[in-house]
Amino acid sequence: MEYKFSEKVSNLKPSAIREILKMTSVPGIISFAAGNPAPDAFPVEDIKRITGEILSADPIAALQYSITEGYVPLREDVKARLAKKGSYIEGKDEVIITSGGQQATELSCKSFLNEGDTIIAESPSFVGCLNAFRSYNANLVGVEMDEEGISIEKLRDAVKREPNVKLVYVIPNFQNPTGKCMTAKRRRELYELACELDFVIIEDDPYGELRFEGEDIPTIKSLDKEGRVIYAGSFSKIISPGMRVGYVSAAPEIISKIVVCKQVSDVHSNILAQMICHRLLTETDFDSHLSKLRDIYRRKYRIMADAIEKYFPKDVKVTKPQGGLFIWADLPDRIDMLEFCRQAPAQGVAVVPGTAFLCSPKDSTNSFRMNFSTPTDEQLVKGCEILGRLLG
Amino acid sequence: MEYKFSEKVSNLKPSAIREILKMTSVPGIISFAAGNPAPDAFPVEDIKRITGEILSADPIAALQYSITEGYVPLREDVKARLAKKGSYIEGKDEVIITSGGQQATELSCKSFLNEGDTIIAESPSFVGCLNAFRSYNANLVGVEMDEEGISIEKLRDAVKREPNVKLVYVIPNFQNPTGKCMTAKRRRELYELACELDFVIIEDDPYGELRFEGEDIPTIKSLDKEGRVIYAGSFSKIISPGMRVGYVSAAPEIISKIVVCKQVSDVHSNILAQMICHRLLTETDFDSHLSKLRDIYRRKYRIMADAIEKYFPKDVKVTKPQGGLFIWADLPDRIDMLEFCRQAPAQGVAVVPGTAFLCSPKDSTNSFRMNFSTPTDEQLVKGCEILGRLLG
Repeated sequence: MEYKFSEKVSNLKPSAIREILKMTSVPGIISFAAGNPAPDAFPVEDIKRITGEILSADPIAALQYSITEGYVPLREDVKARLAKKGSYIEGKDEVIITSGGQQATELSCKSFLNEGDTIIAESPSFVGCLNAFRSYNANLVGVEMDEEGISIEKLRDAVKREPNVKLVYVIPNFQNPTGKCMTAKRRRELYELACELDFVIIEDDPYGELRFEGEDIPTIKSLDKEGRVIYAGSFSKIISPGMRVGYVSAAPEIISKIVVCKQVSDVHSNILAQMICHRLLTETDFDSHLSKLRDIYRRKYRIMADAIEKYFPKDVKVTKPQGGLFIWADLPDRIDMLEFCRQAPAQGVAVVPGTAFLCSPKDSTNSFRMNFSTPTDEQLVKGCEILGRLLG
Repeated sequence: MEYKFSEKVSNLKPSAIREILKMTSVPGIISFAAGNPAPDAFPVEDIKRITGEILSADPIAALQYSITEGYVPLREDVKARLAKKGSYIEGKDEVIITSGGQQATELSCKSFLNEGDTIIAESPSFVGCLNAFRSYNANLVGVEMDEEGISIEKLRDAVKREPNVKLVYVIPNFQNPTGKCMTAKRRRELYELACELDFVIIEDDPYGELRFEGEDIPTIKSLDKEGRVIYAGSFSKIISPGMRVGYVSAAPEIISKIVVCKQVSDVHSNILAQMICHRLLTETDFDSHLSKLRDIYRRKYRIMADAIEKYFPKDVKVTKPQGGLFIWADLPDRIDMLEFCRQAPAQGVAVVPGTAFLCSPKDSTNSFRMNFSTPTDEQLVKGCEILGRLLG
């Protein structure tokens, strides 16, 4: 039969990254294309012990239906952790547990956007969330970044130009795909513009706790006097992405809309995973765990950065992230980026073409993304050597 | 600030049932309002052992990102189980793992419905899915049931009358909230009407394996020659709802749309839970487990049915389900149902007013829903005694 699919999905394609990931499961290929935590970053022994204890002491609570808002002790942990950074204020904000950071953004989008309303994102940005915006038939508009973050002048123009700009989506810390970090000054300017032109900011922060150089910068949420910042966090990069546990801190009116959207989406998130996260946060030395993660990612970043320095031609410009999982490489005009990304797997290395992260087919880029968290130390060096050769 | 929420959610209220559930956590109250599996129905010891084994033998696979389509061995199990009942045919159908049955329906809806398109459901029907339809600004229309299931004549009229009827949502086995089972004849008639008038059927079947009396009736999916039935199943009622693992069997074109919708919603479902389900299905005597569940629900149903017989006035008519979790009670005109449902908790028993399950504010009912799976045996008797007294 001929299916009459909705307009929302009829033009939606599977994420380019996940398609590339499938390709990179070809045995022997070195994948710089993933965004997975390092396998040695998982607190396996603690999770094993804690899971056994939960299923012995409290199995019915771990297996029965639970409430949409999330496991209460975990919500309290999240509130306490966010409060330390000013990203949650008792009485002014509320917290919901989501099925990963992706769901946090998707439900925020569903709560605010009518079809045709505009959502603005940094260009380039995380393709998973861009596709979520597309899946609501939103008018998705990209605004360029400079070294300090999203361009405030260009953002101002876009907000004035585009219809019904309700949301601006940013990843201030170690942005996916560029690895860039928005400066404190730019965060303030962005928040002030939100107040002036009346839009809501989605601050997506899955990598904020993976800073391995420099000092933490206050979150945009910590500047939020008017309740116009939706802060989304995740345990995917610091505990386990397979568990699908994230969270949102926002004004109670916003959270109550996200709750009804989540209720019709998946009722609640896997409850055992929420209980595991709670115990990891409260019964283990979680700060030491985070410190160990930062050591792993600092080492891996430096190995890749050193190999790039050694093997890449000097006219290839790369970002120098102080945290997160990604490096962004900008190619000179003499190299065709798409052709390069197509040839690389044949030489044994997969990277993601920058075009995957663009908001609109009108935008263009000659850059590609490299991940340093998933490959082994040896693969990081070997892969850069192969890419360097290909870059001539 | 004044929030400009989307039209989709601005009229959406939290599910009446979940609100009632919150109220029924008042200590001492007997809740007939839930839809939870019986606590002794969970295979706790097997889950504990299996989880320990997975986290010892294969922890990284259980914690790392996985693919959107679901854990491959579990998909194979589901295909094999469905194939036995004709609900999956190799080459003609495909399977995706979802975060519970709720997500299966919600993503099907997102895949097909533009705003204003019509989805028809049995009236009354499961409020969680009705709210999912509302959350896409669909034109939600209810069609009455008789003793055999949804009325084909009234459905035909509705499909011809309403704009762009794309989907018809039914729960053929032990329907929530009525406990009714659609006859084989009615299933054939429904499928033939779908072919004649060109709509897609969502066959939601969370209770099909909980038949405790009578013989299984072939699924609508097993009649599906044209690829117009989306079959949604769930492990919530037969393993654990807290795990949030369900699945869909449908034509590959439909599944690929559901995959892109799921990708932007939660990337994939909790992977440890999928691995646990796989091992339970393949390494334990799962048929014996199902048989034990049926014994539990048959006993609990009979206790409640006997107590109703003993304590309820004869002019209160109740359904006599052969499976599932619910009894539907129809009140005579002399009793105001809403007033009764409000008074019951004050006497110590909570039930759900039938109005919670209606598709439209224009529809009306003088019925309420009772659940027999969650209360203890003593509570089933005591609760019916109290309700009987209140019903005069």
